[in-house]
Amino acid sequence: MRTRVTEMFGIDLPIFAFSHCRDVVAAVSRAGGMGVLGALYFTPDELETELAWIDEHVGGRPYGVDVVMPAAYEGAQLGAATPAELQERLQTFIPDRHRTFVNDLLAGHGVPELTGEDAGHFLLGWTDATARPQVATALKHPIALLANALGAPPADVVAQAHERGVKVAGLASNVRHARKQREVGVDIIVAQGTEAGGHTGDVSTMVLVPEVVDAVAPAPVLAAGGIGRGRQMAAGMALGAEGVWTGSVWLATEEADTPQGALEQILRATSRDTVRSRSMTGKPARMLRNDWTEAWEGDAAPATLQMPLQFMLIADALRRVSRVRHPTLTPSPVGQIVGSLNQVKAVSQVVYEFMAEFGDTLERLGTVARE
Amino acid sequence: MRTRVTEMFGIDLPIFAFSHCRDVVAAVSRAGGMGVLGALYFTPDELETELAWIDEHVGGRPYGVDVVMPAAYEGAQLGAATPAELQERLQTFIPDRHRTFVNDLLAGHGVPELTGEDAGHFLLGWTDATARPQVATALKHPIALLANALGAPPADVVAQAHERGVKVAGLASNVRHARKQREVGVDIIVAQGTEAGGHTGDVSTMVLVPEVVDAVAPAPVLAAGGIGRGRQMAAGMALGAEGVWTGSVWLATEEADTPQGALEQILRATSRDTVRSRSMTGKPARMLRNDWTEAWEGDAAPATLQMPLQFMLIADALRRVSRVRHPTLTPSPVGQIVGSLNQVKAVSQVVYEFMAEFGDTLERLGTVARE
Repeated sequence: MRTRVTEMFGIDLPIFAFSHCRDVVAAVSRAGGMGVLGALYFTPDELETELAWIDEHVGGRPYGVDVVMPAAYEGAQLGAATPAELQERLQTFIPDRHRTFVNDLLAGHGVPELTGEDAGHFLLGWTDATARPQVATALKHPIALLANALGAPPADVVAQAHERGVKVAGLASNVRHARKQREVGVDIIVAQGTEAGGHTGDVSTMVLVPEVVDAVAPAPVLAAGGIGRGRQMAAGMALGAEGVWTGSVWLATEEADTPQGALEQILRATSRDTVRSRSMTGKPARMLRNDWTEAWEGDAAPATLQMPLQFMLIADALRRVSRVRHPTLTPSPVGQIVGSLNQVKAVSQVVYEFMAEFGDTLERLGTVARE
Repeated sequence: MRTRVTEMFGIDLPIFAFSHCRDVVAAVSRAGGMGVLGALYFTPDELETELAWIDEHVGGRPYGVDVVMPAAYEGAQLGAATPAELQERLQTFIPDRHRTFVNDLLAGHGVPELTGEDAGHFLLGWTDATARPQVATALKHPIALLANALGAPPADVVAQAHERGVKVAGLASNVRHARKQREVGVDIIVAQGTEAGGHTGDVSTMVLVPEVVDAVAPAPVLAAGGIGRGRQMAAGMALGAEGVWTGSVWLATEEADTPQGALEQILRATSRDTVRSRSMTGKPARMLRNDWTEAWEGDAAPATLQMPLQFMLIADALRRVSRVRHPTLTPSPVGQIVGSLNQVKAVSQVVYEFMAEFGDTLERLGTVARE
């Protein structure tokens, strides 16, 4: 196959695969697509380890890294010198009522408290101060793509990437954001519909992609949201995209490190079992509807906090829940295609099925038109 | 073009156009697609007038009628003998608090009260009792298609249609409903994604269509929701549909009787300016976000009532608002494609552009695949 994005990267298939798991990233790139590692959950040192591993296992194929530099967040005005200082000052912004709500919720489900461990790196990569070290680490590796998940990245980050021959992609859930990304030099716009997992807007992929394609032409666009098989890939490209950006489908692969409890829920869920919730980060993100999301929608729940406070609030809770492997008391980001994830497959099999169904679809459409 | 639905009806193009306006219905059918008249707002006598007009103006081309027979509604258990009796008894179910809320809302916007006129036919076609006379009227005309907008139609209605050689279509927003419709003999499933205008579910077209296609195979499926141009038509068919079911796009045509105030808002709106609201009928329906929907989302608003009580509650309000042409105080159903409706065009022009872009899209996809 040949589109402007396969040409741009010298890849065989215009399938971009977002994953927090290095094994998936390497496997997709080896299969001819482009794996993109989500850096959010890693410290710079951890990220260094992951990328070194990918460099060894990707067989020289191109891959990317995805960071989160939100255009706006609480604390941006504090001008803290270090992530540690920013974190300390931000902690004072979290109301006691919120801490009590989360503690009561976990206690009500019998989840034990932490016992004196280090509370870890609460902020993760949600701020400029924490994402920049990730970018610096990523740019030391032979990455082909730097993606930003929320809003337009700072212009100097785009320039740094371009200096090293790295293309920049930006996720956009509406036309205004897409235009803004182009203004700061983003090369590829990922038009992501509301059906996507994780942070997502309210306009569907079917509506959004043609709008964004027309708004940023001639820049190439990837279709994201609701894409987990060849028919959906063909649909995304029919809408005008040069390729597809996928995520959820890789959660149910042999290579993925999806926790067993979450995986079982993913395999069981229907397409109606997700909800957009602010309970993870303060911004709307699509995830499985479960005890966690229901609690935050209940009458007793406080309003969620702004990014990055909400995640700082819940970071301990996530660790507590993860320790006892409570199956339904943690945010589980996934898109509406979760309904069609009913079986664990190898990454190479998923890619093969994508392309086989894509080929069949184009053949079928050709027949319709010729008659 | 040839698909299973063009063959079924002997039409040139697999474009189904839902409209409450007879002029649009006739124009789409004359242009080679299939116009479908929404019967909801008409008494049986009025519907008779509309269909007689279509019979005269459709040039012998096939057309359809869409009724609303919800599978469940308040009052179904009352066993009322007539629509009038049902209406009288249902009126007692509407709380005073709700009537006060609506009256205060309109008074706050300076909308005068009605002055003794007949309160009209509150129920419209929201119930079995009121929709059946519409079906009887429709089946006296040479219609090719009877569509049901909410849930599976009664099996005897399907049988009546089939006896007269009329095909039956049913709208479904999830797989379970689609299967249920097939069980009662529905011929064509319209898989309608959340981005659609009017009553709509929560799963997007991109995700829903392949699910429904696979669930009801080999029954033909139409893709609905987010479809207003040729690229979206190609995408819907890539997903496995045999054609598309459209609605919003016809609101901005020369033939449509869209009120001027509503039309101006439609032309101005972006794809982010709609909201799913229960404020019109008690079931979630997508409409423009305006003073009306905001009021019902406010803290002072009572919970919406069940179908058909909510519409009975607001029927007088709609008449009052319509009389003074208040531009933003009435539900205005439309899908997310409203963002791309920026110009009023003739129906024939819309159809032409649909097919031109559809053709270009298939050609472009063919090039991608051949490389």
